[in-house]
Amino acid sequence: MRAGDVRALARAVSLVENAAPEAAELLSACFPYTGKALHVGLTGAPGAGKSTLVDRLARMWREAGRRVGVIAVDPSSPYTGGALLGDRIRMQERLGDDGLYVRSMATRGSLGGLAGTTADVAQVIEASGREVVLIETVGVGQDEVEIARLADVTVVVLVPGMGDDVQSLKAGIMEIADVFAINKADREGTDRVEKEISAMQSLASNHEPDIWSVPVVKTIGTTGKGVDVLQAAIIRRWDWLAEDGRLRARRQIYWRERIEGMLRQALLKEARAHGLSETELAQHADRAAAGSEDPYKLVPALVERVFKARGS
Amino acid sequence: MRAGDVRALARAVSLVENAAPEAAELLSACFPYTGKALHVGLTGAPGAGKSTLVDRLARMWREAGRRVGVIAVDPSSPYTGGALLGDRIRMQERLGDDGLYVRSMATRGSLGGLAGTTADVAQVIEASGREVVLIETVGVGQDEVEIARLADVTVVVLVPGMGDDVQSLKAGIMEIADVFAINKADREGTDRVEKEISAMQSLASNHEPDIWSVPVVKTIGTTGKGVDVLQAAIIRRWDWLAEDGRLRARRQIYWRERIEGMLRQALLKEARAHGLSETELAQHADRAAAGSEDPYKLVPALVERVFKARGS
Repeated sequence: MRAGDVRALARAVSLVENAAPEAAELLSACFPYTGKALHVGLTGAPGAGKSTLVDRLARMWREAGRRVGVIAVDPSSPYTGGALLGDRIRMQERLGDDGLYVRSMATRGSLGGLAGTTADVAQVIEASGREVVLIETVGVGQDEVEIARLADVTVVVLVPGMGDDVQSLKAGIMEIADVFAINKADREGTDRVEKEISAMQSLASNHEPDIWSVPVVKTIGTTGKGVDVLQAAIIRRWDWLAEDGRLRARRQIYWRERIEGMLRQALLKEARAHGLSETELAQHADRAAAGSEDPYKLVPALVERVFKARGS
Repeated sequence: MRAGDVRALARAVSLVENAAPEAAELLSACFPYTGKALHVGLTGAPGAGKSTLVDRLARMWREAGRRVGVIAVDPSSPYTGGALLGDRIRMQERLGDDGLYVRSMATRGSLGGLAGTTADVAQVIEASGREVVLIETVGVGQDEVEIARLADVTVVVLVPGMGDDVQSLKAGIMEIADVFAINKADREGTDRVEKEISAMQSLASNHEPDIWSVPVVKTIGTTGKGVDVLQAAIIRRWDWLAEDGRLRARRQIYWRERIEGMLRQALLKEARAHGLSETELAQHADRAAAGSEDPYKLVPALVERVFKARGS
């Protein structure tokens, strides 16, 4: 995989995605080769044209001689459909370029949560020798916010006249945007979206103490217009992060959360391995629902049992 | 508290909200008196008039002789402001009625997560002898989805012409609605919202195998118009749940998730109690950010240490 074998990389990613027993060792082996790449998150409503933008950005970085990874996360909502995977495979085929690795993920409910798995996959892809990793997510839910946290630079893609006014994005999305892209900017309503963002920005206190002024870039993904400006804005943010130890501080916060999440998951796994089967859990739940077993007494007893089983 | 002392109830709720050492014992003592009340969740965008609807519903149940609890959850987003608490206190004062207990919560980041704490508070309030517990949440984020899961009946409150088109609610909100209320239904755009919901409903596969047809009720909270119809729809859903063991099955699923969440939290707490301090966690995160310590090796080592410390 380190030698540039794309099939080896694909196998490695699958191990991580499926939480195979070898995954932890693999991630450990990858760790020394990580921490250098630029991780860009792109998020926005379905139909905003994110895939096209990612495609354009990936090509631009390839033309500049960078090796690029793309992760397309589709939490397969019943409302978005599943066209994404097919699109991305076509993208890879069309390019026939080992310097670009594209991977789709649709693994809601995976062991460490979708955000955790995506973070691990990004690590593996970076370790295969990529300088840029683009992570595309659909929607504006909790998963997207968490995935934004793992990216160094998060681009929120908006589009005029799709009913996704800026107002409706208030739940968390303003906080995560490092760059706004108004895509399909040849459409009517572009100015309105731009004005709404400005209004929102003046209302909100900035999310970082030393101020990064969030740029708003107009793009037309289909023609490529403005994508160079978008790329420049991303790089400007990346350079800004490099100053004054900001990137280090940001990643420290990230790892603080991630280590706790990994630890929580590992402890639960121990509990599962030491006598707490899915069947037993379901039985406890059924008795709690019937009112015949007090879950507030049950949980401490289960903790005791796990420690005893492990200790003996 | 069981004798109807509201101040005792308020103290009990505070213990749970603050995750006091006595909380687990208190929740255990409450458990036998729970599992009977109707828990109604109401959610929707800020400004949709949820408080007024909750106020009206609470009075109607009071007039029917039911004891009622209200939990107003405000995750204190920078975009919503904090007017909620004041409103609710006024509501309680105005009524001067021990049969109605109103509590505001704004405890994002609490130990078991906001949803967990809300679930526990609802248990305590039910155990104080309430037949109906109304839980009001602002917004449509992950917290709201989780809080919806703990309610037996979830009402999604929409309002015409506020920019929160039904389209923009696609991220999870369609799935959680058992009843739609279009509030401020004297406003222009009411019919449009109604049509959008219908279109959405015909697109989406229903979220339960034996079909509950989600009713759409038009209300005007300020005058009370339609709130009786809303209450009837809630009760109809409650009666429907009582049939064919649906409520039991729903609560079994709920407790399955909740017990796992409690266990995860309890295990992490053990880890914290046995040598993993916040300072140490921060140091590990800093070393991971610097690339000098591999977190994938660290976590299993931490797990080992916790079990050893506990065992000795």
